[in-house]
Amino acid sequence: MIATFTDFGSEGPYLGQMKAVLYQNAPAVPVVDVFPDLPPYNVKAAAYLLPAYSRYLPEGTVCLCVVDPGVGSERRALVLRADQHWFVGPDNGLFSILMRRAAEVQVFEISWRPHSLSNSFHGRDLFAPVAGRLAAGEWPGDTIIEAGQLVSPSWPDDLPQVVYLDSYGNAITGLRASSMPRDAVIGVKETSLSFCRTFADAETGTPFWYENSNGLVEMAVANGHAGQLLRLEVGSSVEVKR
Amino acid sequence: MIATFTDFGSEGPYLGQMKAVLYQNAPAVPVVDVFPDLPPYNVKAAAYLLPAYSRYLPEGTVCLCVVDPGVGSERRALVLRADQHWFVGPDNGLFSILMRRAAEVQVFEISWRPHSLSNSFHGRDLFAPVAGRLAAGEWPGDTIIEAGQLVSPSWPDDLPQVVYLDSYGNAITGLRASSMPRDAVIGVKETSLSFCRTFADAETGTPFWYENSNGLVEMAVANGHAGQLLRLEVGSSVEVKR
Amino acid sequence: MIATFTDFGSEGPYLGQMKAVLYQNAPAVPVVDVFPDLPPYNVKAAAYLLPAYSRYLPEGTVCLCVVDPGVGSERRALVLRADQHWFVGPDNGLFSILMRRAAEVQVFEISWRPHSLSNSFHGRDLFAPVAGRLAAGEWPGDTIIEAGQLVSPSWPDDLPQVVYLDSYGNAITGLRASSMPRDAVIGVKETSLSFCRTFADAETGTPFWYENSNGLVEMAVANGHAGQLLRLEVGSSVEVKR
Repeated sequence: MIATFTDFGSEGPYLGQMKAVLYQNAPAVPVVDVFPDLPPYNVKAAAYLLPAYSRYLPEGTVCLCVVDPGVGSERRALVLRADQHWFVGPDNGLFSILMRRAAEVQVFEISWRPHSLSNSFHGRDLFAPVAGRLAAGEWPGDTIIEAGQLVSPSWPDDLPQVVYLDSYGNAITGLRASSMPRDAVIGVKETSLSFCRTFADAETGTPFWYENSNGLVEMAVANGHAGQLLRLEVGSSVEVKR
Repeated sequence: MIATFTDFGSEGPYLGQMKAVLYQNAPAVPVVDVFPDLPPYNVKAAAYLLPAYSRYLPEGTVCLCVVDPGVGSERRALVLRADQHWFVGPDNGLFSILMRRAAEVQVFEISWRPHSLSNSFHGRDLFAPVAGRLAAGEWPGDTIIEAGQLVSPSWPDDLPQVVYLDSYGNAITGLRASSMPRDAVIGVKETSLSFCRTFADAETGTPFWYENSNGLVEMAVANGHAGQLLRLEVGSSVEVKR
Repeated sequence: MIATFTDFGSEGPYLGQMKAVLYQNAPAVPVVDVFPDLPPYNVKAAAYLLPAYSRYLPEGTVCLCVVDPGVGSERRALVLRADQHWFVGPDNGLFSILMRRAAEVQVFEISWRPHSLSNSFHGRDLFAPVAGRLAAGEWPGDTIIEAGQLVSPSWPDDLPQVVYLDSYGNAITGLRASSMPRDAVIGVKETSLSFCRTFADAETGTPFWYENSNGLVEMAVANGHAGQLLRLEVGSSVEVKR
């Protein structure tokens, strides 16, 4: 299986063009858009979402990851093997949190370049052919790189910020719920949120935090829109109070 | 074929994660998102859309239906055989209108539960594995239930309300056009709408009602946006005047 | 491969229903939504986007093209062979720019009609079965037509207008970059935009034009939203100054 993680959104001509290239290179492999609308240009938010939203995918899945504001400038093209999954994308910090959390990582640089490489869409022209050939069983990486050579931002292990607002208005943070005691209180703007196990347990209208289905701390309101109620956006800070 | 009916929207990480599970369980079966953005949390609107938007699907299609505001609380997981299609989803009223209209219905309870079941995403963890195995020819249901045991809201056979606003601004109602005489007038807010067979017959700027391509009464404006013009939202009442 | 070009948007029940018909007619052929949200009802904008966004697709791809504001009225249903691709859709001008640019074109009329044809969704009922059968190797066209018999609007070869605004806020025009000298200045509203090869070369906050990855002139702002900054919408005029 090939899984796409992009900031393109599902509207527009970008996801489809990339998938056309994937099917050309790996006609029999299903392609699933796992996260089509990562926050645009936001490598940091994507870095925290990627490990959480790839971990449930089947063993051997090739994750094609394109959040690439620096497209057209010089940076490495990477293939990573992290535990049971493959990742393909730019060396811009996108894989930095994933790599810290993986038990076993191997990193390869892709020196292959297509005959025709646009300046603004390496997802289609460079990363998709590599991901497609990898999924079809061909080996596209060539140089093993030490992890220490990669772009490696000094971001914390858990990010106390909103990293995504979903269509229900729930706000996903970069905090792992596993490291959070259930009596922790999450402060955001002037509001304090307590833990609820599930939406069905929550009082209508009262915002709460819970462990979402991918293991992250998420803020929600039963039958409501937490994003609007709490005036949240991607990047809003949260504070963990115990 | 597997058809998805969800209130997730096509953005966000929910549809893709569910489809990854479907492909794991039924690798050779195409998955089509037939209605990705049913009105959020709105089981009632979905109950009227589901029979209309599943009826044209090929015989044997497995419809995976997830509008599930009560996720995490106790309710049955169901497999239904309704005429020529299969349906998988929660017992929360979502299938109630479909069952009334089907000539032949069989209902099965799913007692199987996965090793790891999140509190907030049974679409991925419970319903998708069942739908996938069903589409692959495996039989996941175990207990035959009487239809009378199911959650059965006292909703009318036809719902005189807007149940969906599409991207063109057209407003789909829960009324079947087959039961509506062509000289019926539909009243909504202070406006009265007459029947037009097709957009090409309608006067630019004048709202009208027509039988949409799935057999429901729909309100539209040629070259315009009926939702904005008439200030409609999901749940807006309409009145049938003859 | 089947590629869809529609103005439905990826939300709503239209794309999925059409794809269900495609899979019925061509079960083994992958379907990719290349441009799901062409500007609604806007045949002219689509006519300029279609040649640019189909040209990178694999040889033999069947492009199912549905921007069809006149659905329900009388107009021809067409199959075109233009260079290495197939196109299926209505005779309403949608293919007019494509045909001018193709080196070799053959046009066929489809006289086949389905048993049940809705008044408002020929994409599902008429064009999808034809595209599916064509992709499966069956020949659905019957009458060869002279190109001169087709609807042929008197639109210019390059359109100095915005034809699409993408999710990043970039504004795609109907101008081919190949016919544009790199020292050309693009005027839009009161702003003049110079050429930049790539986002990485542009100054943050200063709008520029560049050759997008499909060969069209596109206006953008590094780390910004050109559409909002320049108050652009589909149809906004641009002026080429040299």
